[in-house]
Amino acid sequence: MDAPRFDTISFLSDYGLRDEFVGVVKGVIRSLAPHVTVLDVTHEIPPHDIRAGALTLARSVQYLPAGIVLAVVDPGVGSDRRAVAIEVEDAVLVGPDNGLLASAVALAGGAKRAVALTNAEYHLAAPGPTFAGRDIFAPSAAHLCLGVELDQLGEAVDPYTLLPGIVPLSRQEGGKVLGEVLWVDRFGNAQLNVGPDEVEEMEDRVVVRIGDRPARLAHRVASYAELKAGQVGLVVDSYGLLSIALNRRSAAEELGFGAGDAVTLEPAGL
Amino acid sequence: MDAPRFDTISFLSDYGLRDEFVGVVKGVIRSLAPHVTVLDVTHEIPPHDIRAGALTLARSVQYLPAGIVLAVVDPGVGSDRRAVAIEVEDAVLVGPDNGLLASAVALAGGAKRAVALTNAEYHLAAPGPTFAGRDIFAPSAAHLCLGVELDQLGEAVDPYTLLPGIVPLSRQEGGKVLGEVLWVDRFGNAQLNVGPDEVEEMEDRVVVRIGDRPARLAHRVASYAELKAGQVGLVVDSYGLLSIALNRRSAAEELGFGAGDAVTLEPAGL
Amino acid sequence: MDAPRFDTISFLSDYGLRDEFVGVVKGVIRSLAPHVTVLDVTHEIPPHDIRAGALTLARSVQYLPAGIVLAVVDPGVGSDRRAVAIEVEDAVLVGPDNGLLASAVALAGGAKRAVALTNAEYHLAAPGPTFAGRDIFAPSAAHLCLGVELDQLGEAVDPYTLLPGIVPLSRQEGGKVLGEVLWVDRFGNAQLNVGPDEVEEMEDRVVVRIGDRPARLAHRVASYAELKAGQVGLVVDSYGLLSIALNRRSAAEELGFGAGDAVTLEPAGL
Repeated sequence: MDAPRFDTISFLSDYGLRDEFVGVVKGVIRSLAPHVTVLDVTHEIPPHDIRAGALTLARSVQYLPAGIVLAVVDPGVGSDRRAVAIEVEDAVLVGPDNGLLASAVALAGGAKRAVALTNAEYHLAAPGPTFAGRDIFAPSAAHLCLGVELDQLGEAVDPYTLLPGIVPLSRQEGGKVLGEVLWVDRFGNAQLNVGPDEVEEMEDRVVVRIGDRPARLAHRVASYAELKAGQVGLVVDSYGLLSIALNRRSAAEELGFGAGDAVTLEPAGL
Repeated sequence: MDAPRFDTISFLSDYGLRDEFVGVVKGVIRSLAPHVTVLDVTHEIPPHDIRAGALTLARSVQYLPAGIVLAVVDPGVGSDRRAVAIEVEDAVLVGPDNGLLASAVALAGGAKRAVALTNAEYHLAAPGPTFAGRDIFAPSAAHLCLGVELDQLGEAVDPYTLLPGIVPLSRQEGGKVLGEVLWVDRFGNAQLNVGPDEVEEMEDRVVVRIGDRPARLAHRVASYAELKAGQVGLVVDSYGLLSIALNRRSAAEELGFGAGDAVTLEPAGL
Repeated sequence: MDAPRFDTISFLSDYGLRDEFVGVVKGVIRSLAPHVTVLDVTHEIPPHDIRAGALTLARSVQYLPAGIVLAVVDPGVGSDRRAVAIEVEDAVLVGPDNGLLASAVALAGGAKRAVALTNAEYHLAAPGPTFAGRDIFAPSAAHLCLGVELDQLGEAVDPYTLLPGIVPLSRQEGGKVLGEVLWVDRFGNAQLNVGPDEVEEMEDRVVVRIGDRPARLAHRVASYAELKAGQVGLVVDSYGLLSIALNRRSAAEELGFGAGDAVTLEPAGL
């Protein structure tokens, strides 16, 4: 074992904050590697929602400090899905091999090496197999921070065999852009899988259709504050994607949509 | 740049814990200033509710350690509202100039100096203008912790031009006290903008009217536990203000009121 | 006062994350003992629910690092219930003497010494008596971390006079096991107060009755993932107790039960 190698574990999960799951994982980490700071990305990913977890991780990863990224949304816990650690530039991602980590790995420059977390020497003995975050992922992550080498944690895995993530792509069709709602945030803003370049040739007013709800005219503005009461806006959000928003009100609530809904954008004059 | 100047950033926002906003802000801070501990005041201020954020910050500020106070409830993000850093005794408050910081600044002894955060050298490059917490406030706060001088962060601002907060005052009228509910906490207790001195001449039983709901007889007691089942209490709360409470039950839920409701207190014998 | 003695305070409460209570407690700790890391176990114990708090603490305590365990679910705050610090092997538990700490103390090997937190020298001056977490428990815990001796915090208390916790026991009756739901977690899994040894002689299929709802056939499986859609499972959970679960869905929601409900388990062929 070398000198401490990392001092931050960024931690995302669907554990919620109601139970003690997050606290117990932190207890395991601190007992093993007291020099580590745990940075909570979020723990309110909807239960078992791998897609939402993967998208959240992908949005966050470029802002996380060098170190470990521990991500657990793991409906297959206890089954034969692999538990893995994936080395990228400046970080190691630790979690289930179920697609959760894939987009973040790609955004971080791709996997350099990967292992399956099969070395029980670095696990906690557990009375049942249902809490891999506590028993497998957290102690493996803590040992990486202590300087344990990646290949000590288990057998090598060919990165090409890791489960890929599903990235919903938009497409152009007859002057329209067909996409979907990737994410509805706390403020009710809806991030689309559509970049501003894709609507470059449309005017400042764009017709937006979400699912089968009535079409709405959306105004392309630079910030929410430019929108008048009742106006629907199309704003380049903080990740560089188009987002449907209202000023100080929830677009999702007032227009009635959610993550995964199909969206069509077309020029107002079409 | 001097030696590290502060090692704590106390952080309040309306970002919620469902999305990754808080985690990303912490990632930015830790990447820039790894020696800093972030202390979460709360992130569950209702979206865009500047009043609730300002009151929460005012209640908390005297208990926060020396360092930076980062506060973001910012419905005008991306507009021309200023982003500011305000130096008080032992602390610098960083946030939007929209009234959010005003009461806390006053309680901390008043502004000594202030700047607008206009120096883009201390910001993150951002694809869109909607996440100033990540792109402007967090990196500015982190650089202050690293020893960057306040006046490096942007142009000086006359503290007298900072937007004042709105502090709802109570008043006496014909033997009655007219006030309002400042805050309903998780337990359903309602803090009023009325101090115990204002009801000093009333007996131990006070008639309470909230909004247009029926009058209730409230018992002045020292702690919730003194109240019998069903009794409404008037308790000096932990901030020294009167609060309407029940014993082990939610007064707000059972009496049906919320923050901002008007309250009248009058002697039982009036 | 010695050199710093502990550097971790594990913190559980029913304060919730909506208000600033948790942040203010952390502010008090950091102002007094800046070297301490606070580890949040959970703060979403339902308001005043001592039973839920005690069970959560009991499940967590073996995973928490050496140091202080600060636990506050305290409906009797301000009454004559005692505030205590209880020394066990490797830890000191700090909180109200209302049964909240009892099971955790027992699991940690039992109380070695205890004191009532009566020494106001280690408290904050407070305008009202309703926030003992901030004014009594946090500063006492912080001073313990700084090396203040337990017996400086107040008068010795005979550990045998501490309020015991209530541990609901299961029992056998005519080939059936009668127990109850201890805890429903975020995923809707229901931990029972029944260990796998108690159903050892039943077949792989067990008839489960919860409250007065219709009996259901439950399949004993090793992990959630083994269950087919619609199947009810009986899984040994991560704490070694039986738990009623569905695969990727909420058993509590679909079967309609909650913590405290009575449960009967019997062999399928009875």
